[in-house]
Amino acid sequence: MRPTNVSPVRAHGLICGAMQPGPRNLITDVAGITVGHKTVIDGDLRTGFTAIVPHQGNLFLDKLVASSAVINGFGKSAGLIQVEELGTLETPILLTNTFGVAEGIHALIRRELRQNPQIDRAKGTVNPVVMECNDGYLSDINAIALTEEDANAALVAASEDFEQGSVGAGTGISCFGFKGGIGSASRQIELEERTFTLGALVQANFGRAGDLVLPDGRRPSPEGMAAQEERGSVIIVLATDVPLESRQLKRIARRAGAGLARLGSFYGNGSGDIGFAFSTAHKIPHNSERDLIARDYMHEGNIDLLFQAAAETTQEAVLNAMIASPAMYGKGTSFRPSLKDWLDQN
Amino acid sequence: MRPTNVSPVRAHGLICGAMQPGPRNLITDVAGITVGHKTVIDGDLRTGFTAIVPHQGNLFLDKLVASSAVINGFGKSAGLIQVEELGTLETPILLTNTFGVAEGIHALIRRELRQNPQIDRAKGTVNPVVMECNDGYLSDINAIALTEEDANAALVAASEDFEQGSVGAGTGISCFGFKGGIGSASRQIELEERTFTLGALVQANFGRAGDLVLPDGRRPSPEGMAAQEERGSVIIVLATDVPLESRQLKRIARRAGAGLARLGSFYGNGSGDIGFAFSTAHKIPHNSERDLIARDYMHEGNIDLLFQAAAETTQEAVLNAMIASPAMYGKGTSFRPSLKDWLDQN
Amino acid sequence: MRPTNVSPVRAHGLICGAMQPGPRNLITDVAGITVGHKTVIDGDLRTGFTAIVPHQGNLFLDKLVASSAVINGFGKSAGLIQVEELGTLETPILLTNTFGVAEGIHALIRRELRQNPQIDRAKGTVNPVVMECNDGYLSDINAIALTEEDANAALVAASEDFEQGSVGAGTGISCFGFKGGIGSASRQIELEERTFTLGALVQANFGRAGDLVLPDGRRPSPEGMAAQEERGSVIIVLATDVPLESRQLKRIARRAGAGLARLGSFYGNGSGDIGFAFSTAHKIPHNSERDLIARDYMHEGNIDLLFQAAAETTQEAVLNAMIASPAMYGKGTSFRPSLKDWLDQN
Amino acid sequence: MRPTNVSPVRAHGLICGAMQPGPRNLITDVAGITVGHKTVIDGDLRTGFTAIVPHQGNLFLDKLVASSAVINGFGKSAGLIQVEELGTLETPILLTNTFGVAEGIHALIRRELRQNPQIDRAKGTVNPVVMECNDGYLSDINAIALTEEDANAALVAASEDFEQGSVGAGTGISCFGFKGGIGSASRQIELEERTFTLGALVQANFGRAGDLVLPDGRRPSPEGMAAQEERGSVIIVLATDVPLESRQLKRIARRAGAGLARLGSFYGNGSGDIGFAFSTAHKIPHNSERDLIARDYMHEGNIDLLFQAAAETTQEAVLNAMIASPAMYGKGTSFRPSLKDWLDQN
Repeated sequence: MRPTNVSPVRAHGLICGAMQPGPRNLITDVAGITVGHKTVIDGDLRTGFTAIVPHQGNLFLDKLVASSAVINGFGKSAGLIQVEELGTLETPILLTNTFGVAEGIHALIRRELRQNPQIDRAKGTVNPVVMECNDGYLSDINAIALTEEDANAALVAASEDFEQGSVGAGTGISCFGFKGGIGSASRQIELEERTFTLGALVQANFGRAGDLVLPDGRRPSPEGMAAQEERGSVIIVLATDVPLESRQLKRIARRAGAGLARLGSFYGNGSGDIGFAFSTAHKIPHNSERDLIARDYMHEGNIDLLFQAAAETTQEAVLNAMIASPAMYGKGTSFRPSLKDWLDQN
Repeated sequence: MRPTNVSPVRAHGLICGAMQPGPRNLITDVAGITVGHKTVIDGDLRTGFTAIVPHQGNLFLDKLVASSAVINGFGKSAGLIQVEELGTLETPILLTNTFGVAEGIHALIRRELRQNPQIDRAKGTVNPVVMECNDGYLSDINAIALTEEDANAALVAASEDFEQGSVGAGTGISCFGFKGGIGSASRQIELEERTFTLGALVQANFGRAGDLVLPDGRRPSPEGMAAQEERGSVIIVLATDVPLESRQLKRIARRAGAGLARLGSFYGNGSGDIGFAFSTAHKIPHNSERDLIARDYMHEGNIDLLFQAAAETTQEAVLNAMIASPAMYGKGTSFRPSLKDWLDQN
Repeated sequence: MRPTNVSPVRAHGLICGAMQPGPRNLITDVAGITVGHKTVIDGDLRTGFTAIVPHQGNLFLDKLVASSAVINGFGKSAGLIQVEELGTLETPILLTNTFGVAEGIHALIRRELRQNPQIDRAKGTVNPVVMECNDGYLSDINAIALTEEDANAALVAASEDFEQGSVGAGTGISCFGFKGGIGSASRQIELEERTFTLGALVQANFGRAGDLVLPDGRRPSPEGMAAQEERGSVIIVLATDVPLESRQLKRIARRAGAGLARLGSFYGNGSGDIGFAFSTAHKIPHNSERDLIARDYMHEGNIDLLFQAAAETTQEAVLNAMIASPAMYGKGTSFRPSLKDWLDQN
Repeated sequence: MRPTNVSPVRAHGLICGAMQPGPRNLITDVAGITVGHKTVIDGDLRTGFTAIVPHQGNLFLDKLVASSAVINGFGKSAGLIQVEELGTLETPILLTNTFGVAEGIHALIRRELRQNPQIDRAKGTVNPVVMECNDGYLSDINAIALTEEDANAALVAASEDFEQGSVGAGTGISCFGFKGGIGSASRQIELEERTFTLGALVQANFGRAGDLVLPDGRRPSPEGMAAQEERGSVIIVLATDVPLESRQLKRIARRAGAGLARLGSFYGNGSGDIGFAFSTAHKIPHNSERDLIARDYMHEGNIDLLFQAAAETTQEAVLNAMIASPAMYGKGTSFRPSLKDWLDQN
């Protein structure tokens, strides 16, 4: 553990908001969460999977409260309909490219079947959550090259420390005309003299060249790139150990949109922008001998702390994703410069 | 209290579903709820207010968990947007005619201001919940005759026992070409060896003549009435003492639509069909010194009991509303026969 | 073409509603639509794919207006988020079992890539629509046995005439304790002296034994079967040649819920009940040289005709699915009797 | 008409985004729209009504396509449920304080009854759209002082030119610790060699002191004011002459949230943040002899132009509201400084 609070963007003196990050400034500051990547760079491929494992037990038997907010629904995510209805997450979350969703679904189904051989009609089926961005500019997405084994590799690799930048599902993506990627950040929240945490992990593949705004007001733009349509998508996964209802988590997920807008986005038509939020505070049993279950939850009075943390971590996680990603050449003549290089030169 | 389980429809040997009603077979079988009417019959007016008081304390300071389901949104209800966001009910519910909503809002705001003189910017404002049906066939709705005092009268009249039929907000309404009105029903639910209750109260003003189906399959149709467009609306208020989240209450409210469809409705274009559900199990404090609040809630595993109860009580409450309403002459040459008379003759 | 208007349920003298069916009384009465099945019966497998091809051109380049209504979201459908945002359908619709969705996604992506090799970052990706029911009672769903080739076989088999009952995605499913399956029905609508059609195709796998109600009021119940939790799901696809907006199609899709409730369902907790509606009236170009596009659409004034047709066809299609399905033995000792046998004996 | 493109914020050299404003840089750059205020400053009152009249004909008979986006639903707006269902606006829009909504409803109902004496059961009722902010910090909101006549006065005063700042519904409101108010802005959009317009009018009463960010990156904060909870609300009305479906207008209304976030907001818990959008391109007849109606609409391909315009005009309209509002003393010792004074001194 790096007890330093630093992050790629803070190393450049840029601070997103006023709240204090957790020790790693990563989503894994929320206890129990691990993150893993499987990066595929091979010929014209720049792609992969990123897995977020919300807790280390049996997620199907011990679900977590969850919700999502569709900021712009031009996307192909799996699993959100059931999360909306039942307010629970029962698998790890996989991030990948648009055409990798099916293999992610296979991986999550078979993972749960292995852990829970009893899943059948009597027990219900499992609801895999897989979200995606289109990495087709730098990578040959039409090859449909990712496999169930790649998804499993990301799940197996999950740990509390993980890389940011052009790794896993962030390998081949773009952001405001620069190289995008996977980024993360966290904020601490004091409630009843205890320290809670909200963390974000983003798959940042959105924004038009020229629209990016830094926290200090500067507007980095990749040289020689024509303005283009915003497309590509961004997935924002928010996690917290504050006890919350799914309704409250939906409210928090919606604030990811505020973080995106602070960066200069207006949620372009072609961008699938999805916020997803879960709480690790309580495990919701798949089966319960009791009809009534005790659970605490947060009074709405101080929920602005979580809203602010959601906006700040989203903003910082995107910048971390960009700064942690070196310039990359991809499929054909495709190329994305690095925001880090721009910052070093400006 | 009539410990008889009877209801207008059961007196005719018609049973909606298999579950057991509560002692009154009314929404007030849920402890703490009271219902009151103000009936206005005067010249061309056949209208009024019905008040549902969800508990007898200070509702603004001690809110209840609530949600709604818009089955068909051709309606002018007040307050549903905030209920959706915050999942709480903080005033009594008023039912009235479409043009009476504004006076209902006034009444609820001033009621809460009297009880809570401190409501201002520092404390927030109050969110009045007022729902409505169009009684313009039998009543001169364009007179906009209802007043804040009428709304207050309904609130003051609230008690555990209350009339069904052509009273309060049910005075001038129509249902499947017959006289409609206010109806109610309840069902008992066993959880953890305790008896819980779900109750419904409907303002039944929907359905085309000829579409009504009775539980025994008969299809009563008012004589000599041409088929017409379905319009008029139906409001279904569901209450329970089972502890539930707002997400679960939304699921329950949606099942009111199943009850309507069993009666022959297809949710006509011109009908504002709204389900609203609340739980009396927990009081949500307006202000809380604690950030985290303990609360139990129902495990989803047995929630079908509440879904079934919602469908059954909606169906029975509509039939009770109709059977408890005698035939009525209204504005001009308007007339609605009574389903009770049809049943007595068939 | 069988110009007979008959259907399995009408052959038993049972009529759902008052509207007139189209010549086939199938969803393919809407011109241009074809339906195909791939049935897999092998060892413990009773499963398959059903494909609905909405028009015979290039669906990605010429999309159709579409929308969906989540009646109960306990399901794993793919593609609904983007349909909600953009209001268009750009692939055939595949129905399958819960664990077959991923292979359906693969099949639809590769079908569109073959037809449109230019799909990449510049052109956007494709949004496959795959919906599902859990056939795990009669079939060994955990084998995850369906393949992309099975999905392709259903697509290739699509024609205007197609079988109902235990075929394709209906092979191994159950309904109200009887054998369920694929069913269809249609209704004609007169607008401006032209005859339009609304058709339904259902994958009927829902309902508790004992809850079924026939149009004549009878309540068939499979012998010797204990009441059970409702689960399994039902998918209702509605198609019409009436020109409509996606908002109107969502309203129509919601009326599928009225059809289900008329059959005795209350949308049980464990049942993923999804209505999906599209119009063949206009093709929405993927690329357009014009910014403004002319299109006619239906005035809301007569939309009740479509609402009623949606409720009636849903109800009839479910009964057709059941009656067209003979009794079936499945995995282990599992068995489902046929509603046809019950009708023949009662 | 001031053909100058200037606005309060541009007079200070601050530019929101890259698009070109219309001639007035007001919502009334969209042809046919007029805006009027009724300002009430009397004793402890600082309140009023603002009316937006979308076209100058009979709005009930000739409705406009409309939609809304609830960014944060802590608010008491009237009329949004029906707009969501039917996708049309049939009255002028009134903005007022939270406790003025009922009188606004009365005013709009009676206005339509006067224009359409035939509204009754046969013709349907009218759906008044009234939205609100809480002006209870500077004004004695609990006096419930606004009347139907005040609402009528705002409607009567409507014209193409109108004041911004502390007028009408903006009289007593606050924004980021400064004086808030009514503001407006517009942007031009080129489609098919024609110039279209999107305009915004905001009632800006949101944001915590210290959170405001100017387009140049500066962060004005009112002196000596402690950070506070965000509450108060903001209503953003967007209008355009581009032909659009209600689905597209909802997408545009959602982008108002991007404009708010660029200003530093994270949509605080206590703030009712509502975007509302309508198009003047087509009149939707209340009654139609035809079932099918021709209408053009915008292809989604260039809709980013409208998304960007929505974000830019929202941002600029809020700053215009603030800069046009002088410092104000209100109820008790309440006081709000002016952003204009801050800009003049910094």
